[in-house]
Amino acid sequence: MNIEPLLKYISKYIDLTTDEIAFLKSKITVRKFLKGQYIVQQGDVCRYTCFVLSGCTKTFYVDSEGQEHILMFSIEDWWTSDMGSFITQTPADFNVQCLENSELVIFPYESYENLLAGIPKLERFFRQIIEKAFVASQKRIVRNNSLSAKNQYLYFREQYPLIEQRIPQYMIASYLGITKEFLSKIKSQLILEQ
Amino acid sequence: MNIEPLLKYISKYIDLTTDEIAFLKSKITVRKFLKGQYIVQQGDVCRYTCFVLSGCTKTFYVDSEGQEHILMFSIEDWWTSDMGSFITQTPADFNVQCLENSELVIFPYESYENLLAGIPKLERFFRQIIEKAFVASQKRIVRNNSLSAKNQYLYFREQYPLIEQRIPQYMIASYLGITKEFLSKIKSQLILEQ
Repeated sequence: MNIEPLLKYISKYIDLTTDEIAFLKSKITVRKFLKGQYIVQQGDVCRYTCFVLSGCTKTFYVDSEGQEHILMFSIEDWWTSDMGSFITQTPADFNVQCLENSELVIFPYESYENLLAGIPKLERFFRQIIEKAFVASQKRIVRNNSLSAKNQYLYFREQYPLIEQRIPQYMIASYLGITKEFLSKIKSQLILEQ
Repeated sequence: MNIEPLLKYISKYIDLTTDEIAFLKSKITVRKFLKGQYIVQQGDVCRYTCFVLSGCTKTFYVDSEGQEHILMFSIEDWWTSDMGSFITQTPADFNVQCLENSELVIFPYESYENLLAGIPKLERFFRQIIEKAFVASQKRIVRNNSLSAKNQYLYFREQYPLIEQRIPQYMIASYLGITKEFLSKIKSQLILEQ
Protein backbone atom coordinates (compact mmCIF):
# COMPACT_ATOMS: atom_id res chain seq x y z
CA MET A 1 0.00 0.00 0.00
CA ASN A 2 1.70 3.20 -1.16
CA ILE A 3 0.43 6.03 1.00
CA GLU A 4 3.58 8.16 0.95
CA PRO A 5 1.74 11.43 0.12
CA LEU A 6 -0.57 10.89 3.12
CA LEU A 7 2.34 10.12 5.46
CA LYS A 8 4.21 13.19 4.21
CA TYR A 9 1.08 15.29 4.79
CA ILE A 10 0.60 13.91 8.32
CA SER A 11 4.28 14.48 9.13
CA LYS A 12 3.74 18.23 8.78
CA TYR A 13 1.62 18.01 11.95
CA ILE A 14 2.79 15.02 13.99
CA ASP A 15 5.48 12.32 14.03
CA LEU A 16 4.27 8.75 13.73
CA THR A 17 6.37 5.76 14.81
CA THR A 18 6.77 2.68 12.59
CA ASP A 19 4.26 0.82 14.78
CA GLU A 20 1.76 3.68 14.52
CA ILE A 21 2.12 3.75 10.73
CA ALA A 22 1.46 0.01 10.68
CA PHE A 23 -1.65 0.51 12.84
CA LEU A 24 -2.81 3.33 10.58
CA LYS A 25 -2.32 1.12 7.51
CA SER A 26 -4.37 -1.64 9.13
CA LYS A 27 -7.34 0.75 9.40
CA ILE A 28 -7.36 2.26 5.90
CA THR A 29 -7.45 1.11 2.30
CA VAL A 30 -6.44 2.62 -1.03
CA ARG A 31 -9.05 2.54 -3.74
CA LYS A 32 -9.17 3.60 -7.37
CA PHE A 33 -12.21 5.33 -8.84
CA LEU A 34 -12.91 6.01 -12.49
CA LYS A 35 -13.82 9.44 -13.78
CA GLY A 36 -17.55 9.84 -13.21
CA GLN A 37 -17.75 7.43 -10.27
CA TYR A 38 -19.31 8.59 -7.03
CA ILE A 39 -17.68 8.42 -3.61
CA VAL A 40 -21.01 9.25 -2.01
CA GLN A 41 -24.41 10.17 -3.43
CA GLN A 42 -26.87 12.64 -1.92
CA GLY A 43 -29.32 10.69 0.25
CA ASP A 44 -26.94 7.79 0.93
CA VAL A 45 -24.87 7.55 4.09
CA CYS A 46 -21.24 8.59 3.59
CA ARG A 47 -19.29 5.58 4.84
CA TYR A 48 -15.77 7.03 4.57
CA THR A 49 -13.69 10.12 4.50
CA CYS A 50 -10.92 10.18 1.90
CA PHE A 51 -7.50 11.65 1.25
CA VAL A 52 -6.74 12.27 -2.43
CA LEU A 53 -3.52 10.57 -3.62
CA SER A 54 -4.23 11.48 -7.25
CA GLY A 55 -7.14 12.78 -9.28
CA CYS A 56 -9.84 15.34 -8.62
CA THR A 57 -13.30 15.24 -7.06
CA LYS A 58 -16.17 17.67 -6.84
CA THR A 59 -18.61 17.98 -3.94
CA PHE A 60 -22.02 19.23 -4.99
CA TYR A 61 -25.63 19.54 -4.03
CA VAL A 62 -28.58 19.10 -6.39
CA ASP A 63 -31.55 21.27 -5.43
CA SER A 64 -35.24 20.38 -5.76
CA GLU A 65 -35.27 21.87 -9.25
CA GLY A 66 -32.41 19.64 -10.36
CA GLN A 67 -29.83 22.38 -10.39
CA GLU A 68 -26.29 21.54 -9.33
CA HIS A 69 -24.43 23.72 -6.78
CA ILE A 70 -20.73 22.96 -6.36
CA LEU A 71 -19.34 23.33 -2.86
CA MET A 72 -15.72 22.34 -3.44
CA PHE A 73 -13.13 20.56 -5.51
CA SER A 74 -10.45 18.28 -4.05
CA ILE A 75 -7.14 17.46 -5.70
CA GLU A 76 -3.93 15.79 -4.50
CA ASP A 77 -3.27 16.25 -0.75
CA TRP A 78 -6.84 17.35 -0.02
CA TRP A 79 -9.64 15.59 1.77
CA THR A 80 -13.03 14.68 0.40
CA SER A 81 -16.30 13.30 1.82
CA ASP A 82 -19.67 14.52 3.00
CA MET A 83 -18.34 15.29 6.48
CA GLY A 84 -21.81 15.94 7.94
CA SER A 85 -23.06 12.56 6.81
CA PHE A 86 -19.82 10.84 7.78
CA ILE A 87 -19.72 12.03 11.39
CA THR A 88 -23.42 11.42 12.04
CA GLN A 89 -23.93 8.43 9.70
CA THR A 90 -27.12 10.00 8.38
CA PRO A 91 -28.06 10.58 4.70
CA ALA A 92 -25.68 12.85 2.79
CA ASP A 93 -26.62 16.35 1.67
CA PHE A 94 -23.91 16.26 -0.97
CA ASN A 95 -22.63 14.16 -3.83
CA VAL A 96 -18.91 13.58 -4.21
CA GLN A 97 -17.97 12.57 -7.74
CA CYS A 98 -14.61 11.96 -9.43
CA LEU A 99 -13.85 14.43 -12.21
CA GLU A 100 -10.77 12.39 -13.18
CA ASN A 101 -9.62 8.83 -12.56
CA SER A 102 -8.67 9.11 -8.90
CA GLU A 103 -6.81 7.17 -6.25
CA LEU A 104 -7.99 7.77 -2.70
CA VAL A 105 -7.03 6.69 0.79
CA ILE A 106 -10.24 5.51 2.42
CA PHE A 107 -10.86 6.00 6.15
CA PRO A 108 -13.98 3.88 6.86
CA TYR A 109 -16.33 5.17 9.54
CA GLU A 110 -16.01 1.94 11.56
CA SER A 111 -12.25 2.44 11.84
CA TYR A 112 -12.06 6.22 12.16
CA GLU A 113 -12.89 6.75 15.85
CA ASN A 114 -11.08 3.53 16.70
CA LEU A 115 -7.99 4.69 14.83
CA LEU A 116 -8.02 8.04 16.62
CA ALA A 117 -8.49 6.38 19.99
CA GLY A 118 -5.58 4.04 19.18
CA ILE A 119 -3.25 6.87 18.18
CA PRO A 120 -4.15 9.96 20.25
CA LYS A 121 -1.71 12.02 18.17
CA LEU A 122 -3.98 11.40 15.18
CA GLU A 123 -6.86 12.85 17.20
CA ARG A 124 -4.77 16.01 17.48
CA PHE A 125 -3.88 15.86 13.77
CA PHE A 126 -7.52 15.60 12.69
CA ARG A 127 -8.57 18.32 15.14
CA GLN A 128 -5.95 20.63 13.69
CA ILE A 129 -6.74 20.01 10.02
CA ILE A 130 -10.46 20.42 10.69
CA GLU A 131 -9.79 23.68 12.50
CA LYS A 132 -7.98 24.88 9.38
CA ALA A 133 -10.78 23.71 7.09
CA PHE A 134 -13.33 25.47 9.31
CA VAL A 135 -11.37 28.72 9.19
CA ALA A 136 -11.10 28.53 5.38
CA SER A 137 -14.82 27.89 5.19
CA GLN A 138 -15.62 30.91 7.41
CA LYS A 139 -13.43 33.15 5.29
CA ARG A 140 -15.18 31.95 2.17
CA ILE A 141 -18.57 32.91 3.62
CA VAL A 142 -17.29 36.43 4.20
CA ARG A 143 -15.77 36.63 0.71
CA ASN A 144 -19.08 35.51 -0.77
CA ASN A 145 -20.87 38.29 1.10
CA SER A 146 -18.29 41.03 0.67
CA LEU A 147 -16.54 40.56 -2.68
CA SER A 148 -17.96 41.14 -6.15
CA ALA A 149 -18.26 38.04 -8.36
CA LYS A 150 -15.25 39.30 -10.33
CA ASN A 151 -13.09 39.55 -7.22
CA GLN A 152 -14.29 36.16 -6.01
CA TYR A 153 -13.20 34.68 -9.34
CA LEU A 154 -9.81 36.45 -9.15
CA TYR A 155 -9.34 35.08 -5.64
CA PHE A 156 -10.20 31.56 -6.79
CA ARG A 157 -7.81 31.78 -9.75
CA GLU A 158 -5.00 33.04 -7.57
CA GLN A 159 -5.53 30.54 -4.78
CA TYR A 160 -6.21 27.47 -6.86
CA PRO A 161 -4.40 27.85 -10.22
CA LEU A 162 -3.96 24.07 -10.47
CA ILE A 163 -7.67 23.42 -10.06
CA GLU A 164 -8.71 25.98 -12.64
CA GLN A 165 -6.65 24.23 -15.32
CA ARG A 166 -8.29 20.88 -14.60
CA ILE A 167 -11.99 21.59 -14.54
CA PRO A 168 -14.56 23.03 -16.94
CA GLN A 169 -15.56 26.69 -16.66
CA TYR A 170 -19.21 25.95 -15.95
CA MET A 171 -18.19 24.12 -12.79
CA ILE A 172 -16.12 27.09 -11.63
CA ALA A 173 -19.19 29.27 -12.23
CA SER A 174 -21.28 26.91 -10.09
CA TYR A 175 -18.62 26.97 -7.34
CA LEU A 176 -18.74 30.77 -7.39
CA GLY A 177 -22.55 30.76 -7.32
CA ILE A 178 -22.89 32.54 -10.69
CA THR A 179 -24.03 31.50 -14.16
CA LYS A 180 -21.51 30.36 -16.73
CA GLU A 181 -22.55 33.30 -18.93
CA PHE A 182 -21.67 35.71 -16.13
CA LEU A 183 -18.30 34.04 -15.57
CA SER A 184 -17.62 34.29 -19.30
CA LYS A 185 -18.45 38.00 -19.16
CA ILE A 186 -16.09 38.50 -16.21
CA LYS A 187 -13.29 36.72 -18.06
CA SER A 188 -13.81 38.80 -21.22
CA GLN A 189 -13.70 41.94 -19.10
CA LEU A 190 -10.44 40.80 -17.46
CA ILE A 191 -8.85 40.23 -20.87
CA LEU A 192 -9.83 43.75 -21.94
CA GLU A 193 -8.31 45.15 -18.74
CA GLN A 194 -4.92 43.51 -19.36
CA MET B 1 -15.94 29.74 39.25
CA ASN B 2 -19.39 28.78 37.99
CA ILE B 3 -18.96 27.06 34.65
CA GLU B 4 -21.95 24.72 34.93
CA PRO B 5 -23.28 25.48 31.41
CA LEU B 6 -19.87 24.61 29.92
CA LEU B 7 -19.63 21.37 31.91
CA LYS B 8 -23.16 20.42 30.88
CA TYR B 9 -22.27 21.15 27.25
CA ILE B 10 -19.06 19.07 27.43
CA SER B 11 -20.93 16.21 29.11
CA LYS B 12 -22.97 15.74 25.93
CA TYR B 13 -19.76 14.53 24.29
CA ILE B 14 -17.45 13.13 26.98
CA ASP B 15 -17.40 12.32 30.71
CA LEU B 16 -14.90 14.24 32.80
CA THR B 17 -13.70 13.04 36.21
CA THR B 18 -13.54 15.40 39.20
CA ASP B 19 -9.76 15.66 38.75
CA GLU B 20 -10.14 16.48 35.08
CA ILE B 21 -12.70 19.18 35.85
CA ALA B 22 -10.24 20.64 38.37
CA PHE B 23 -7.49 20.58 35.74
CA LEU B 24 -9.80 22.21 33.20
CA LYS B 25 -10.70 24.93 35.72
CA SER B 26 -7.01 25.60 36.34
CA LYS B 27 -6.54 26.41 32.65
CA ILE B 28 -9.51 28.71 32.04
CA THR B 29 -11.01 31.88 33.46
CA VAL B 30 -14.45 33.46 33.47
CA ARG B 31 -14.61 37.08 32.36
CA LYS B 32 -17.35 39.65 32.07
CA PHE B 33 -17.54 42.03 29.12
CA LEU B 34 -19.76 45.06 28.75
CA LYS B 35 -21.99 45.62 25.75
CA GLY B 36 -19.78 47.18 23.08
CA GLN B 37 -16.52 45.68 24.33
CA TYR B 38 -14.32 43.73 21.94
CA ILE B 39 -13.06 40.21 22.52
CA VAL B 40 -10.70 40.61 19.57
CA GLN B 41 -10.20 43.36 17.02
CA GLN B 42 -9.31 42.88 13.37
CA GLY B 43 -5.52 43.13 13.02
CA ASP B 44 -4.79 42.08 16.61
CA VAL B 45 -3.88 38.51 17.54
CA CYS B 46 -6.79 36.57 19.04
CA ARG B 47 -5.43 35.35 22.36
CA TYR B 48 -8.35 33.17 23.42
CA THR B 49 -11.31 31.18 22.30
CA CYS B 50 -14.46 31.61 24.37
CA PHE B 51 -17.59 29.77 25.42
CA VAL B 52 -20.60 32.02 26.01
CA LEU B 53 -22.16 31.59 29.47
CA SER B 54 -24.48 34.56 28.94
CA GLY B 55 -24.84 37.42 26.48
CA CYS B 56 -24.39 37.71 22.76
CA THR B 57 -21.45 38.48 20.46
CA LYS B 58 -21.10 39.27 16.78
CA THR B 59 -18.16 38.31 14.59
CA PHE B 60 -17.61 40.69 11.71
CA TYR B 61 -15.19 41.90 9.10
CA VAL B 62 -14.73 45.52 8.05
CA ASP B 63 -13.72 45.84 4.40
CA SER B 64 -11.37 48.44 2.89
CA GLU B 65 -14.33 50.74 2.30
CA GLY B 66 -15.33 50.62 5.94
CA GLN B 67 -18.34 48.41 5.40
CA GLU B 68 -19.18 45.82 8.05
CA HIS B 69 -19.90 42.20 7.07
CA ILE B 70 -21.26 39.98 9.83
CA LEU B 71 -20.11 36.37 9.82
CA MET B 72 -21.91 35.06 12.88
CA PHE B 73 -23.61 35.70 16.19
CA SER B 74 -22.92 33.69 19.34
CA ILE B 75 -25.29 33.34 22.28
CA GLU B 76 -25.41 31.04 25.32
CA ASP B 77 -23.75 27.64 24.76
CA TRP B 78 -21.95 28.79 21.60
CA TRP B 79 -18.29 29.47 20.97
CA THR B 80 -16.75 32.71 19.84
CA SER B 81 -13.28 33.84 18.69
CA ASP B 82 -11.37 34.48 15.49
CA MET B 83 -10.44 30.82 15.14
CA GLY B 84 -7.98 31.45 12.28
CA SER B 85 -6.08 34.00 14.31
CA PHE B 86 -6.31 31.89 17.47
CA ILE B 87 -4.84 28.71 16.02
CA THR B 88 -2.03 30.46 14.14
CA GLN B 89 -1.48 33.41 16.53
CA THR B 90 -1.41 35.78 13.58
CA PRO B 91 -3.47 38.99 13.15
CA ALA B 92 -7.22 38.50 13.17
CA ASP B 93 -9.36 38.93 10.05
CA PHE B 94 -12.41 39.48 12.21
CA ASN B 95 -13.69 41.56 15.09
CA VAL B 96 -15.66 39.91 17.87
CA GLN B 97 -17.76 42.40 19.80
CA CYS B 98 -20.31 41.98 22.59
CA LEU B 99 -23.83 43.03 21.61
CA GLU B 100 -24.98 42.61 25.23
CA ASN B 101 -23.23 42.47 28.58
CA SER B 102 -21.67 39.02 28.35
CA GLU B 103 -20.00 36.45 30.53
CA LEU B 104 -17.52 34.20 28.79
CA VAL B 105 -15.32 31.25 29.63
CA ILE B 106 -11.87 32.14 28.32
CA PHE B 107 -9.53 29.45 26.97
CA PRO B 108 -6.19 31.25 26.59
CA TYR B 109 -3.97 30.13 23.71
CA GLU B 110 -1.08 29.29 26.06
CA SER B 111 -3.30 26.81 27.93
CA TYR B 112 -5.34 25.41 25.05
CA GLU B 113 -2.93 22.85 23.52
CA ASN B 114 -1.60 22.08 27.00
CA LEU B 115 -5.12 21.45 28.29
CA LEU B 116 -5.90 19.15 25.37
CA ALA B 117 -2.65 17.26 25.82
CA GLY B 118 -3.42 16.90 29.54
CA ILE B 119 -6.95 15.57 28.93
CA PRO B 120 -6.93 13.61 25.65
CA LYS B 121 -10.71 13.26 25.88
CA LEU B 122 -10.92 17.03 25.47
CA GLU B 123 -8.92 16.71 22.25
CA ARG B 124 -11.69 14.42 21.04
CA PHE B 125 -14.37 16.83 22.30
CA PHE B 126 -12.86 19.79 20.46
CA ARG B 127 -12.32 17.73 17.31
CA GLN B 128 -15.97 16.71 17.35
CA ILE B 129 -17.40 20.19 17.96
CA ILE B 130 -15.17 21.67 15.26
CA GLU B 131 -16.27 18.95 12.84
CA LYS B 132 -19.87 20.02 13.53
CA ALA B 133 -19.05 23.71 13.11
CA PHE B 134 -17.26 22.94 9.83
CA VAL B 135 -20.26 21.01 8.52
CA ALA B 136 -22.63 23.87 9.46
CA SER B 137 -20.32 26.30 7.71
CA GLN B 138 -20.22 24.18 4.53
CA LYS B 139 -24.00 23.96 4.47
CA ARG B 140 -24.25 27.70 4.84
CA ILE B 141 -22.02 28.23 1.79
CA VAL B 142 -24.36 26.07 -0.25
CA ARG B 143 -27.45 27.86 1.09
CA ASN B 144 -25.88 31.20 0.19
CA ASN B 145 -25.32 29.99 -3.37
CA SER B 146 -28.56 28.10 -3.86
CA LEU B 147 -31.32 29.83 -1.86
CA SER B 148 -32.97 33.17 -2.60
CA ALA B 149 -32.40 35.93 -0.03
CA LYS B 150 -35.97 35.40 1.15
CA ASN B 151 -35.42 31.70 1.76
CA GLN B 152 -32.11 32.38 3.47
CA TYR B 153 -33.90 34.76 5.82
CA LEU B 154 -36.67 32.20 6.48
CA TYR B 155 -34.02 29.60 7.25
CA PHE B 156 -32.25 31.96 9.65
CA ARG B 157 -35.51 32.84 11.42
CA GLU B 158 -36.47 29.20 11.80
CA GLN B 159 -33.04 28.03 12.96
CA TYR B 160 -32.20 30.91 15.28
CA PRO B 161 -35.45 32.38 16.62
CA LEU B 162 -33.72 33.38 19.87
CA ILE B 163 -31.04 35.35 18.04
CA GLU B 164 -33.48 37.22 15.85
CA GLN B 165 -35.26 38.62 18.91
CA ARG B 166 -32.03 39.92 20.40
CA ILE B 167 -30.33 41.78 17.57
CA PRO B 168 -31.18 44.69 15.28
CA GLN B 169 -32.52 44.02 11.80
CA TYR B 170 -29.64 45.75 10.01
CA MET B 171 -27.25 43.21 11.54
CA ILE B 172 -29.37 40.31 10.31
CA ALA B 173 -29.26 41.90 6.85
CA SER B 174 -25.47 42.09 7.05
CA TYR B 175 -25.31 38.44 8.18
CA LEU B 176 -27.42 37.48 5.15
CA GLY B 177 -25.25 39.58 2.83
CA ILE B 178 -28.12 41.88 1.81
CA THR B 179 -29.02 45.51 2.48
CA LYS B 180 -31.36 46.42 5.34
CA GLU B 181 -33.76 47.88 2.77
CA PHE B 182 -33.90 44.54 0.97
CA LEU B 183 -34.50 42.66 4.24
CA SER B 184 -37.27 45.10 5.08
CA LYS B 185 -38.84 44.43 1.65
CA ILE B 186 -38.63 40.66 2.23
CA LYS B 187 -40.31 41.02 5.63
CA SER B 188 -43.12 43.18 4.22
CA GLN B 189 -43.67 40.60 1.50
CA LEU B 190 -43.83 37.80 4.09
CA ILE B 191 -46.47 39.72 6.08
CA LEU B 192 -48.57 40.12 2.93
CA GLU B 193 -48.26 36.38 2.24
CA GLN B 194 -49.60 35.40 5.68
